[in-house]
Amino acid sequence: MGVCVGVEEGGSARERKSKMERANGRPARREREVSLEELRERLANFAKEREWDQFHSPRNLLLALVGEVGELSEIFQWRGEVARGLPNWSASDKEHLGEELSDVLLYLVRLADVCGLDLGSAALTKLVKNGHKYPVTSQSQQQLSLRSRPAGDDLPV
Amino acid sequence: MGVCVGVEEGGSARERKSKMERANGRPARREREVSLEELRERLANFAKEREWDQFHSPRNLLLALVGEVGELSEIFQWRGEVARGLPNWSASDKEHLGEELSDVLLYLVRLADVCGLDLGSAALTKLVKNGHKYPVTSQSQQQLSLRSRPAGDDLPV
Amino acid sequence: MGVCVGVEEGGSARERKSKMERANGRPARREREVSLEELRERLANFAKEREWDQFHSPRNLLLALVGEVGELSEIFQWRGEVARGLPNWSASDKEHLGEELSDVLLYLVRLADVCGLDLGSAALTKLVKNGHKYPVTSQSQQQLSLRSRPAGDDLPV
Amino acid sequence: MGVCVGVEEGGSARERKSKMERANGRPARREREVSLEELRERLANFAKEREWDQFHSPRNLLLALVGEVGELSEIFQWRGEVARGLPNWSASDKEHLGEELSDVLLYLVRLADVCGLDLGSAALTKLVKNGHKYPVTSQSQQQLSLRSRPAGDDLPV
Repeated sequence: MGVCVGVEEGGSARERKSKMERANGRPARREREVSLEELRERLANFAKEREWDQFHSPRNLLLALVGEVGELSEIFQWRGEVARGLPNWSASDKEHLGEELSDVLLYLVRLADVCGLDLGSAALTKLVKNGHKYPVTSQSQQQLSLRSRPAGDDLPV
Repeated sequence: MGVCVGVEEGGSARERKSKMERANGRPARREREVSLEELRERLANFAKEREWDQFHSPRNLLLALVGEVGELSEIFQWRGEVARGLPNWSASDKEHLGEELSDVLLYLVRLADVCGLDLGSAALTKLVKNGHKYPVTSQSQQQLSLRSRPAGDDLPV
Repeated sequence: MGVCVGVEEGGSARERKSKMERANGRPARREREVSLEELRERLANFAKEREWDQFHSPRNLLLALVGEVGELSEIFQWRGEVARGLPNWSASDKEHLGEELSDVLLYLVRLADVCGLDLGSAALTKLVKNGHKYPVTSQSQQQLSLRSRPAGDDLPV
Repeated sequence: MGVCVGVEEGGSARERKSKMERANGRPARREREVSLEELRERLANFAKEREWDQFHSPRNLLLALVGEVGELSEIFQWRGEVARGLPNWSASDKEHLGEELSDVLLYLVRLADVCGLDLGSAALTKLVKNGHKYPVTSQSQQQLSLRSRPAGDDLPV
């Protein structure tokens, strides 16, 4: 079974989106969620079938990732501050953004894979760590609201 | 219900990894795979509980992402070429790498979310597009093997 | 003669700044301007004296550059839009910014050097090219003012 | 007097390179070295004449810089380790590299300028600081040779 088949299944899965409307303006979520493991496996097959494994060394992929982050930045570079939800962006601009976000994601997943790391597991671990580092307290909320944190500090997602 | 509860559920889920042995050297995969939607939802709750939504504008998050890509690059910067699988890296170095990869991922997921884009769906769409752009043919394989592609060209993952 | 001597000469040269005041708030310019060639030579000596040439391969330096761009981005990441001239920034924040801008510059100069490229000459050539690509016409001004340029296009400095 | 005039003077200055032979394999240096102040001034004029100041906010320029770093990375992304001096690179590849290095430099100079910082002065200051932080001693040389420094540490240029 080829990668393209798998990919097209993915595409069709995407099209089978739930029709349920959401009251808060969010798009309805897919019935089948996209997992990091699925992306990892497809990318591994994609490279294998094209004999591209020879190019996928960690630092090659890292530089490719940096290149994609550059393309992502270019989309935002001359716009000044951009509001959440991208009001007034054209459908074409949003599609372009989705592609660049995806390129960053795909190289990231591939980089983790060739390094032998489980990205999904690492991400969950980091969420736990962030939760401990930044507990939910009224004090921390106030501290952040006052922007008392030094510039450049590591404010977690 | 706090974020930490959800996160710790995630952590414990991670610990319930399948006990299946690795036939091919890969670690056994999680029973419950990590989806982009799960990460998106946790991050949204994380920010909401800490009243950090006010900081999560698209360009703020993009610059935070660039910052994390910088930290990721620093791990690789003085090592020369790095072999796949990271032989000879210490456990500590690998853990550090997993954290930086995760930070990039988490900001990417959060950025897509505040932009109102479905990252998983976009990634699947991009995989389909890449599959069409680079079909599996002996010609394309040869072309790549000979490195006849111009430097900087967009070799997809 | 050691690098440190040369560097301290540079430092003292900096302190010999012209005392002339500027009406528009800009700092008075140095009597002796800093050239890219001077930076190149000092960095080459700096690395040679410390036997760091062994680490300064092009891709090592490129990743170090990316790391510094990340640190530069972190300074700006949670601030929202920043006004020109950095009003209300503390002296400490400005000093930090100057250091990160410098780190990017120094790695860039060093990268060009180990690649055997003359960065100053290349920069002047690029300015000429940009001048031809974007001639000064009322049409181009209007075009830009209307933001009719596609997102991500290469607006030159 | 227009920017283009100044730029073409710069170009012609470049062509008046010293005819001195290279004793050590380095290209002969320009009679007139390129200073950061010259670049700053030309870029300021360039933007003013095209009425582009309105786009040159600090964060816009920073994102443009990140975009150019991405393009710089793309040149190196699929090559594996690259030797100093870029042996076997075509003239075209080298020219492309010179352009991307220049783009990063020009945005960096422009960013410093709109922030009101003197980049040349800041760079000299940073060199002094690096000289103090990493004195030339046999111990430090040995330490680095043994790669005992932790990954990602701040090895200065």
